[in-house]
Amino acid sequence: MSTPHPFDAATALAATGEPGVFQGHTSPGYANFIGPYGGITAAQAIQAVLQHPQRIGEPVAFTVNFAAALADGPFTAHARPARTNRSTQHWIVELRQGDDSVVTATALTAVRRETWGGHEAVAPGVPRPAGVPRTPRKGVEWLHRYDMRFITGMVPRTWDVPGQAESITRLWVRDEPPRPLDFPALTALADNFFPRIWLRRPKQTPIGTVSMTVYFHADSAQLAATGTGYLLLQAQGQGFRNGYFDHAGHLWNEAGELLATTHQVVYFKE
Amino acid sequence: MSTPHPFDAATALAATGEPGVFQGHTSPGYANFIGPYGGITAAQAIQAVLQHPQRIGEPVAFTVNFAAALADGPFTAHARPARTNRSTQHWIVELRQGDDSVVTATALTAVRRETWGGHEAVAPGVPRPAGVPRTPRKGVEWLHRYDMRFITGMVPRTWDVPGQAESITRLWVRDEPPRPLDFPALTALADNFFPRIWLRRPKQTPIGTVSMTVYFHADSAQLAATGTGYLLLQAQGQGFRNGYFDHAGHLWNEAGELLATTHQVVYFKE
Repeated sequence: MSTPHPFDAATALAATGEPGVFQGHTSPGYANFIGPYGGITAAQAIQAVLQHPQRIGEPVAFTVNFAAALADGPFTAHARPARTNRSTQHWIVELRQGDDSVVTATALTAVRRETWGGHEAVAPGVPRPAGVPRTPRKGVEWLHRYDMRFITGMVPRTWDVPGQAESITRLWVRDEPPRPLDFPALTALADNFFPRIWLRRPKQTPIGTVSMTVYFHADSAQLAATGTGYLLLQAQGQGFRNGYFDHAGHLWNEAGELLATTHQVVYFKE
Repeated sequence: MSTPHPFDAATALAATGEPGVFQGHTSPGYANFIGPYGGITAAQAIQAVLQHPQRIGEPVAFTVNFAAALADGPFTAHARPARTNRSTQHWIVELRQGDDSVVTATALTAVRRETWGGHEAVAPGVPRPAGVPRTPRKGVEWLHRYDMRFITGMVPRTWDVPGQAESITRLWVRDEPPRPLDFPALTALADNFFPRIWLRRPKQTPIGTVSMTVYFHADSAQLAATGTGYLLLQAQGQGFRNGYFDHAGHLWNEAGELLATTHQVVYFKE
């Protein structure tokens, strides 16, 4: 028997007797400072939609709210189709530990048809992944689950120094070990960015993503074609004020196709 | 007795006997092609959170999903605090007509404290509102509820012609008649943009926003200080493919302060 990929092991959900309720478990392989890497939690939440027997279509929009740090251990994922139309479906998802809600989420899945298209958010010109050395990352376990190759906007090497005017980061990333891309993995990758505030104000204060939205432009065929290739990720901060900042992000594949856009708002202390 | 502002009349919710359940009504003054203007529906959804007696703090993040066109008439708004922490609270909201969910939403409210700040998304240099003539808009009723002054990226005057490479729009907007800015009005304004696809492909096909997220950088004091001034709105499309496109938007006040960022994904036919 082959060992499952760490990502598959971490995002496995078991059906319970109750419709739309699944059992999951946090994974030490994706541990963050406090609780799990938000990306893996997001992947678990969308997994509950993907595994639901009544689902129609593929994810188009997904918003996940991190209501509390998950405690190490089991959780239940509750996915409910609030509205099912002919080709679209609106989902409400909650992850719970005991009686407490730790994550809320909404998702839109849709049966998509071929139409006119043409992405406006074009990938910036950057060196190919093979030409960018892998960036050593350490400190928390989940960083070892990704092969990250920073092009610009690396995590500060020194702290408590003046910040930069802009918080733009570009990097190539893929799962480590490589794993064919799918919706849960793409969702997890959308949360791959370190907090933008570290570039603007290099100070190690507590931070935590409170809400993240992902819009999926790719369908499963495009994800399959992307395979185990690297994704080019870009993010830039927008507003920083009174304990919260947000960033806007993009995820392209090596062919330059825009697979998803993402936004998140992050709490920071002081 | 003075007549209430159309926006206040449209977003009024009446408490029912049931905790967290409110009664609302669609408003002919904000009618769109099919059902109401999405911005007014979004405002009604966040209003349910704002009016909830257990709410703590002010809105930080809000995602609204338009699951179906509202039928003209009454609806119920259901707001539930899924998680209440010391200074943050996570909400799940649904608008229902009969037994059908027509809107789902999540919100984060938080008690914010003064911190370091500094917005990175800076307002572009544009003429003052007084120097930009009011843009005549017609076709649907809700357009008359806003004083819009387009600076660039106006709605196409001719259709079925080649599109532009970029779908950027900038305009000054305020409620008509003027009304002091608050969270529901700012939420409604976030949906003020006509569909970006009309600039990229000037063709009148059915479209509809399916999900919108707003991140609030302003607090109520800043909104009060903004008063009845104009807001500078900017939006640009990102990805357009197989029936859906998304845009990223910003809302600044006349002083150049970033009040909110917003994103939405929109269905288009063909």
